[in-house]
Amino acid sequence: MRLHVPARLRWSDLDAYGHVNNVQMLRLLEEARIEAFWSPEETAGVPVDCSETAVLNVQPGSGTLSLIARQEIEYLVQVPYLRQSLDIQLWLGRLGGASLEVCYEVWNPETTEPRVLFTRAATTLVLADSETGRPRRISDVERAAWSPYVEAPLEFSRRR
Amino acid sequence: MRLHVPARLRWSDLDAYGHVNNVQMLRLLEEARIEAFWSPEETAGVPVDCSETAVLNVQPGSGTLSLIARQEIEYLVQVPYLRQSLDIQLWLGRLGGASLEVCYEVWNPETTEPRVLFTRAATTLVLADSETGRPRRISDVERAAWSPYVEAPLEFSRRR
Amino acid sequence: MRLHVPARLRWSDLDAYGHVNNVQMLRLLEEARIEAFWSPEETAGVPVDCSETAVLNVQPGSGTLSLIARQEIEYLVQVPYLRQSLDIQLWLGRLGGASLEVCYEVWNPETTEPRVLFTRAATTLVLADSETGRPRRISDVERAAWSPYVEAPLEFSRRR
Amino acid sequence: MRLHVPARLRWSDLDAYGHVNNVQMLRLLEEARIEAFWSPEETAGVPVDCSETAVLNVQPGSGTLSLIARQEIEYLVQVPYLRQSLDIQLWLGRLGGASLEVCYEVWNPETTEPRVLFTRAATTLVLADSETGRPRRISDVERAAWSPYVEAPLEFSRRR
Repeated sequence: MRLHVPARLRWSDLDAYGHVNNVQMLRLLEEARIEAFWSPEETAGVPVDCSETAVLNVQPGSGTLSLIARQEIEYLVQVPYLRQSLDIQLWLGRLGGASLEVCYEVWNPETTEPRVLFTRAATTLVLADSETGRPRRISDVERAAWSPYVEAPLEFSRRR
Repeated sequence: MRLHVPARLRWSDLDAYGHVNNVQMLRLLEEARIEAFWSPEETAGVPVDCSETAVLNVQPGSGTLSLIARQEIEYLVQVPYLRQSLDIQLWLGRLGGASLEVCYEVWNPETTEPRVLFTRAATTLVLADSETGRPRRISDVERAAWSPYVEAPLEFSRRR
Repeated sequence: MRLHVPARLRWSDLDAYGHVNNVQMLRLLEEARIEAFWSPEETAGVPVDCSETAVLNVQPGSGTLSLIARQEIEYLVQVPYLRQSLDIQLWLGRLGGASLEVCYEVWNPETTEPRVLFTRAATTLVLADSETGRPRRISDVERAAWSPYVEAPLEFSRRR
Repeated sequence: MRLHVPARLRWSDLDAYGHVNNVQMLRLLEEARIEAFWSPEETAGVPVDCSETAVLNVQPGSGTLSLIARQEIEYLVQVPYLRQSLDIQLWLGRLGGASLEVCYEVWNPETTEPRVLFTRAATTLVLADSETGRPRRISDVERAAWSPYVEAPLEFSRRR
């Protein structure tokens, strides 16, 4: 099972080559990850539509930080400027004690044929106590929400 | 008459103060302006929903560049991180021969009460020939699409 | 008297038009302003070379926030990618009770002839108490450091 | 043998957590890579001090594009805001026919003791013909300039 997060490009994601910049692609992944996993409840006075996986509370005062330990990304096809949202598909390649691996495939807009896979990536996240900076265990609520999205991790084809 | 462009924040629009950075606010205005005025027809193989004002073709090869001559912006209220889209309202404070002034008010999400006005701004755009770099006249099609949105220009309250 | 802050471009400051993006120009001004006015003392264990005007302490815990109230900018000449630093010249157009106006001219690198003025801009800053968010008075130390750089404010030529 | 590229942070590289954002770290690597390998000759009318490895001409019209095929990065220590330049060390983990692997270690400023290793990363670059988009061979001039910097590639410790 995968999450599908629509990702709206900004024109400023393009670089002087006229394609989505390779670093900005990681920015899009960051935003998709936040959309998918961060709880929005306390960010505003009204309810926000969000995925059932959006249960990680990293609001200031929540006691939790979400830290990035590593990232790996393969760029398969250059991404042009598109006004329709990209289709970022996310799943968990691993759900550990205090850390998890988020895997991504970035596809062209869902309504577009043929489908094109632009990018594959993985991010290792560690949940940490915001006071001590030390890893904290994934809670039962988090584990329950995320377990359905555990799948085989990405196999990267371009590793040495 | 005003255009309403929903503007999705990115978490990365925040700076170390935890609010939307003052420079990023101009990034949001840039994206709203592109959404409102740039024609999306040639960016992908399928039609894109867009405003009737989105008739400016600045695709590579179109012969037109859209240049920024000046900007002015007043920050009234700090913008927190919100998962719902901001409501950016746009109109034209002036529609000249080769240039136009885009005016903006940035409001909190349309569904949120009470309404809060975060920011007011104006941008002077010049349409230019991409070969020569010289101003080119606003076409009849552009003028017809944009004329309904001409309103009184913003009066800035904080000018010396 | 003006401050001269060398401003290194990043290639990522270019947009798909191949010039420094208009919003990124405000990013460069932000960095020049920080370089010129923020005190670096507590950012690392070793002394940092800085201007005598760099006396504003906005470190976390300092009790001061630096807020932006307004900005105005005129783009005169498009800025190409350059490996040498731009020459950002700063002065104060006004030094009030709790606020100040920073004026900027952005020139091509100091060693390059003929000199080209790319951009003119002004930012109104308000110093605020980080607890209450309310304006706080410019201190004697700050006023003494900044007074020599008060000059006539910029006259913008493109205002309606 | 390694190249040392001083990398100046921008305050805007910080995110709402108050540390250098994980994505911005890749932006710093991009800028260091450009500084180290791109030829600056045609970017301005005056000579630019640069490394002897800066021989890759990717100016518009040069016929060459530099494409990113993959990136991998491990974040070891959070990077605070520093006014002194970070010390980015670069070498080549592989120098192939049309592609190369750039390896990086990001250290705290060279004058600071004790030395702290913040981040380790690697980028696979492919040189391509800008007309056809197809890989083009590394030239003799490029190979001669870069060969002294071939070292053992990074061993990443956090791979699954």
